[in-house]
Amino acid sequence: MTPSPAKELYALRHHRLFQSVESARLEAVILNPSPTLYYLTGMQFHLSERPVLAFFKPGSPLALVLPRLEAQKAVDTTFPIQTFPYDEDPTGWVEVLQKAAEWCELNTAHLGLEPRYMRLLEFNLLESALPQATFESGEALLSALRMVKDAAEVQAMRQAARIAQEALQATLPVIRAGVTEREIAAELIVQLYRAGSDPTLPFTPIVSGGPNSANPHAFPSNRPLTIGDLLVIDWGAAFQGYISDITRTFGIGQLEPEFERIAQVVLEANSAGRVACIPETPASSVDRAARSVIEAAGYGVYFTHRTGHGLGLEGHEEPYIRGDNPDPLLTGMSFTVEPGIYLPGRGGVRIEDDIVISATGSESLTDLPRPVQILPA
Amino acid sequence: MTPSPAKELYALRHHRLFQSVESARLEAVILNPSPTLYYLTGMQFHLSERPVLAFFKPGSPLALVLPRLEAQKAVDTTFPIQTFPYDEDPTGWVEVLQKAAEWCELNTAHLGLEPRYMRLLEFNLLESALPQATFESGEALLSALRMVKDAAEVQAMRQAARIAQEALQATLPVIRAGVTEREIAAELIVQLYRAGSDPTLPFTPIVSGGPNSANPHAFPSNRPLTIGDLLVIDWGAAFQGYISDITRTFGIGQLEPEFERIAQVVLEANSAGRVACIPETPASSVDRAARSVIEAAGYGVYFTHRTGHGLGLEGHEEPYIRGDNPDPLLTGMSFTVEPGIYLPGRGGVRIEDDIVISATGSESLTDLPRPVQILPA
Repeated sequence: MTPSPAKELYALRHHRLFQSVESARLEAVILNPSPTLYYLTGMQFHLSERPVLAFFKPGSPLALVLPRLEAQKAVDTTFPIQTFPYDEDPTGWVEVLQKAAEWCELNTAHLGLEPRYMRLLEFNLLESALPQATFESGEALLSALRMVKDAAEVQAMRQAARIAQEALQATLPVIRAGVTEREIAAELIVQLYRAGSDPTLPFTPIVSGGPNSANPHAFPSNRPLTIGDLLVIDWGAAFQGYISDITRTFGIGQLEPEFERIAQVVLEANSAGRVACIPETPASSVDRAARSVIEAAGYGVYFTHRTGHGLGLEGHEEPYIRGDNPDPLLTGMSFTVEPGIYLPGRGGVRIEDDIVISATGSESLTDLPRPVQILPA
Repeated sequence: MTPSPAKELYALRHHRLFQSVESARLEAVILNPSPTLYYLTGMQFHLSERPVLAFFKPGSPLALVLPRLEAQKAVDTTFPIQTFPYDEDPTGWVEVLQKAAEWCELNTAHLGLEPRYMRLLEFNLLESALPQATFESGEALLSALRMVKDAAEVQAMRQAARIAQEALQATLPVIRAGVTEREIAAELIVQLYRAGSDPTLPFTPIVSGGPNSANPHAFPSNRPLTIGDLLVIDWGAAFQGYISDITRTFGIGQLEPEFERIAQVVLEANSAGRVACIPETPASSVDRAARSVIEAAGYGVYFTHRTGHGLGLEGHEEPYIRGDNPDPLLTGMSFTVEPGIYLPGRGGVRIEDDIVISATGSESLTDLPRPVQILPA
């Protein structure tokens, strides 16, 4: 019988994980629900007050500690798995963890964790259950595992970009003076689902108008748009778990001259950043290319964040496009290029695309028109 | 000038927090982005690779460590605040944390944390920045703070329930044999936004049909419904941050006799659980009331989870409705009553309502018909 594609995929990913675990002189890694756990197993869990912990030890079946009510999720895996279900009373959880660790012979091991996802909730239980084990961050090896995307992953990201773009185009007709940020966000979310996004969106869209657009990570408010506003929309879709993350900026009716000026500068910075996405060059060169355009125009202090971040199963992952990141961009890496200028209390402009490094250059998965578009008020 | 309602609200919440902090013999609590941080400040942050840490020390302004690009979020607070913004290079973050701790005079303090939200990412930074400080879980005092809802909170939850119910009713017409779980989930999400949910849903709806309905925490799959399926839908809306969390079960076309039987048993268990929601009685009595109905019918081993959980800014919070929880139900507490029977590989039934304890009894915020409804195939 031919192994299924899923079986081969997870076998390959586990093989690569185990090589990294051994190179890092760890005996295993322990994950809680996270994009990495999904990457390695295809299994999804809500992050809740009930811990889920997965022990990945080279040569062993996956040992999975989970609530009994979720045990059904582990019956159809294509890889060997041993489950350790626990009941509702939290006082029994340490004992179940101990059983799992003993079964894996990891009680005194040196273990890698994922600090961006593991909470004190799980860590405190691990420390209680495995008092002789030692722990360190497995962040570097885990993020390296997912950093280069295969063709199927890129194809899923391409779909996620397509869905997001279609949704924004369907949303534009509702945008006008008087409509609130939240109303626009709600319509955009509806259109994301209509266009085929996964049930879990990668993040709540940022829809920020007027002075709020100067806050790069604003949440949608009840402020109605007014004529002369800049409007930043930063949104994404998910497809088979892979996400898109796009920003376009609009003007409501008309823009004052300085807003037009920063719109042009950010457009040029975005272009310069994308042009600098070349295989084997350092991530820093993309940041430098985009940032130098903004600095030359005299707005450097108003570009308050890095130029981009990796993209895949997560909205923010490696590689980070920062001026101090010397790591080379490799074929299959995917990340955002998203320069911005934010004038506090007045308004901001950001233009964000999703890039995949190809063998010879790069592909922008996103191609909606980039110039700041003036919408009728 | 009269203080604004928001100013009074946060002043009151800080006052209650500081009393609890002092009673617990802590010098401060340190929070990262979480529902508790939102409860205490109204501020929202994405949980990301950039840490945000808030130091709540009795008698001091809130000290907030955050990325410079989010600093705008801290300008309009109604309470005293001192921000410590940091730049993009992570190597500088420990120093900024140290500055904040020194400013609060907390370098050698005994500090409370929130283990369900604080990640190793933040904890490792805290340990590096405050090597002489000691930490413990502030979980008990923090969850007690939010456990009893005021009238405005209950009103927001009532709205969240109304929105969710309206959305389900608008979704029912699309449900029939041949439609997939994911298609139903997408339509339900669209309807949740149409009905007025906040941009961030409390959780991805569970839409699980046939054998998947025996998995209480399933994610929507591409399986099409077939005649004879049980269909569990577990969904909620958010309104002003407060959420609803409801489950109803349906039959597609017709149900085999045992499915009809468990539908009836769960309906009676739900009723018994709701009737037991009486002020000053222990949480365990609600679990016992619901569970004993299912046990008496011979399905006790198939009711694999507790009867409910607290509800508010979070889907799962205190009080937990478990057989071993002696804590009394107090006026203003809100929680779910959600008994279920899950026959592995065949199907499940769950019926979930949202309850608020009143002065004299309880109110169910949810009132959609509870019996398992047979939908035309």
